[in-house]
Amino acid sequence: MDLAANPLLTDLYQLNMIQAYLEHGETRTAVFEFFVRKLPARRGFLVAAGLEQALDFLESLRFSPEELDWLEKSGRFGKDLLDHLAEFRFTGHVHAMPEGTVFFANEPILRVTAPLPEAQLVETRLINILHFQSLIAAKAARMVLCAPGKLLVDFGLRRAHGAEAGLLAARASYIAGFSGTATMLAGKLFGIPIYGTMAHSFVQAYDGETAAFEAFAHSRPDNLVLLIDTYDTEEAAGKVVSLAPRLKAAGITVRGVRLDSGDLIALSKSVRRILDAGGLSDVTIFASGGLDEDELARIAEQRAPIDGFGIGTSLTTSFDVPALDCAYKLQEYAGLPRRKRSTGKATWPGRKQVWRQYSSDGRMCGDTLSVEEDSQSGEPLIQLVMEHGRRLQPEPTLAEIRARASCDLERLPEPLRRVEPGASYPVQVTERLERLAAEVDQRLAQQEGTRP
Amino acid sequence: MDLAANPLLTDLYQLNMIQAYLEHGETRTAVFEFFVRKLPARRGFLVAAGLEQALDFLESLRFSPEELDWLEKSGRFGKDLLDHLAEFRFTGHVHAMPEGTVFFANEPILRVTAPLPEAQLVETRLINILHFQSLIAAKAARMVLCAPGKLLVDFGLRRAHGAEAGLLAARASYIAGFSGTATMLAGKLFGIPIYGTMAHSFVQAYDGETAAFEAFAHSRPDNLVLLIDTYDTEEAAGKVVSLAPRLKAAGITVRGVRLDSGDLIALSKSVRRILDAGGLSDVTIFASGGLDEDELARIAEQRAPIDGFGIGTSLTTSFDVPALDCAYKLQEYAGLPRRKRSTGKATWPGRKQVWRQYSSDGRMCGDTLSVEEDSQSGEPLIQLVMEHGRRLQPEPTLAEIRARASCDLERLPEPLRRVEPGASYPVQVTERLERLAAEVDQRLAQQEGTRP
Repeated sequence: MDLAANPLLTDLYQLNMIQAYLEHGETRTAVFEFFVRKLPARRGFLVAAGLEQALDFLESLRFSPEELDWLEKSGRFGKDLLDHLAEFRFTGHVHAMPEGTVFFANEPILRVTAPLPEAQLVETRLINILHFQSLIAAKAARMVLCAPGKLLVDFGLRRAHGAEAGLLAARASYIAGFSGTATMLAGKLFGIPIYGTMAHSFVQAYDGETAAFEAFAHSRPDNLVLLIDTYDTEEAAGKVVSLAPRLKAAGITVRGVRLDSGDLIALSKSVRRILDAGGLSDVTIFASGGLDEDELARIAEQRAPIDGFGIGTSLTTSFDVPALDCAYKLQEYAGLPRRKRSTGKATWPGRKQVWRQYSSDGRMCGDTLSVEEDSQSGEPLIQLVMEHGRRLQPEPTLAEIRARASCDLERLPEPLRRVEPGASYPVQVTERLERLAAEVDQRLAQQEGTRP
Repeated sequence: MDLAANPLLTDLYQLNMIQAYLEHGETRTAVFEFFVRKLPARRGFLVAAGLEQALDFLESLRFSPEELDWLEKSGRFGKDLLDHLAEFRFTGHVHAMPEGTVFFANEPILRVTAPLPEAQLVETRLINILHFQSLIAAKAARMVLCAPGKLLVDFGLRRAHGAEAGLLAARASYIAGFSGTATMLAGKLFGIPIYGTMAHSFVQAYDGETAAFEAFAHSRPDNLVLLIDTYDTEEAAGKVVSLAPRLKAAGITVRGVRLDSGDLIALSKSVRRILDAGGLSDVTIFASGGLDEDELARIAEQRAPIDGFGIGTSLTTSFDVPALDCAYKLQEYAGLPRRKRSTGKATWPGRKQVWRQYSSDGRMCGDTLSVEEDSQSGEPLIQLVMEHGRRLQPEPTLAEIRARASCDLERLPEPLRRVEPGASYPVQVTERLERLAAEVDQRLAQQEGTRP
């Protein structure tokens, strides 16, 4: 089963609503936008990611005969709906911020313009795709900012929430500036560089650490990194020093050692001393085990001699903030702007554009949220990426997306680059957009006789 | 691409190690166990889940010619390894706790006994499967305990970490006692009951709430639940009261209303009054929007008249604790028990059994962790489920798994049933197991000349 574009990755209520739309002829053009309502604690910015998978999904969405058969047998749906789904293709337009772009609260990063039933069906999966990758890209960007010049590798598949999460987290973290991933399939699917060392089980399977190191070195001599914390880290560093000349004689160079437990700051310093004293000053130290951006910042501050990091759980689950308050909301239907007014969840109506201003030193200094056609100063961030269900060419490569993220992180105001954001970024709403919201409220009040 | 059993859902280091194992003839029988090292804050227990998917994975794991070709072209691996992978089948045994069983720290819920390269290759994906479902089942169980007698429905696909997470969270929460899910594909794959109402976009697409309610009711008359918080919740409740007789005349009964924002406790009380005063005392109130177990407990305490809950983000991301400190560790190789001694990560060696004691009132009162063959009093929880790569029949149905969880939740000691666990559950380690650990340390020290 191809899970990624499965049309049943949707909520029952979407199909219920589509059936009702069809029966009442409500199939005119709808405009939905995806945005984050509010930045969570300790996030000064987010990073747009997942557009490529979102467009893949829209482009390949089809109901198979077997799925249609199952829907029919459920007895829930009428022939109208089943016929509609049998012919279903996404025929709409998509506007979006390029992947890798830094964004803020209330800024749409994707807009769908399509017949109402189409735009409704895809809601659940679009949110599912865009939310997760943007969440992880933002988390990874925090780590990248805390470890300048260091090698960062995604080690997180095992604790990720399922297989797809592991793969997409590898992609999102690579976009944000990670050097690569340990996950083979992410390497195959996305062309991301793959890194790997050895596990404790390898060391444990041998009678003694030195025997394990030697066996591994002879079988995997390229880019050799030895894991030294299975029993006693400092003793193992000593064993590496003793072993290195013997390996050298066989033409094998130890490139690095890995620490995976204990006090990484103290151990990295003592291991560095042991290696240097043993003539192994070229051997790098790689660390893993429960790391997050706070620990990376502490390691940088204490000048621990660690050259690279493998980061798992905190990255692939975005442990401190595993979800964003995001939404995909109807902003226009049948030519009329719409808005939701639920307590704490009100939205800005209509099709919107985000304009980014930069100061003379190249740093971002403020965004403006406007009605689409209301030209403002700055860089317009939202672009057409799919027309009538077909994506526009050429699309950015993963390298280009990564470069955009790198450039945007460089341009972030300094207070937003810190682990504890020191300011919030100014996003201004134009008067015209505020007027539009008031007009929508007024129209609604007139229709219903309710208070605006 | 069938993602679920993809053999490249593994880390590069597994393949590196397997290549080394093959070259050195280290292909004797290895025993790995999966367990959680430590219960996280606010979790008094966990619930085993994911075994069915784990066995599916082991049984169907194969390398396709295309995958082998990609591995070969990477230039990283030798012919030995590629030939081995081309013929790869999982031929080992699996012992496990039945899904739905409550478990605690350091208790293995799965054991793999297989030639070392096989047991190593499957590590990453086995952890990925078992960790996530057990995490979600435990989170869902907390909600079930806080909302006795209420209808609980998983609404979480959109904010789940990818598609697979959404599907497996639907399954895990159903095991733990949820009534169903909103996710169509989870219904199709697992036979879980599917629930759904309507979204704000439906209401917004119409000129006025009443028109939207009426259109929806005529198209979806069965089990009709109207969403009443798009603009003003109390006013909308009044509109439902006005509309109900007109619908009744058309043979349509309003079954419920849904609140999705605002102060759910206060609103449920006022909406209940409005409905009752309008003769709609049979209409149920269903609530959603940012709910978690704390909010459910508060709602129960305040006796808010809410009959059912849709729960999304907090459930499918296990928001307060999005990962467990779990591991899959080598406990025996080539007939000798093994253990890891890394700081804070030491493990109990050998093949183990967990024995559960019950007091006279049927409540669990303590577990014993022993060497497998060391018979203790109580119920042995770990059973053989796969032999030589083939699962034993009959396997439990999802209904049976759900019944086991329900029974175990009933038998939990009262302090562990609370949102804030009032005690920790006693898990005793036998003297013989402690002796075995000391022997392993001693053997290792002799081999290496290091301190035990």
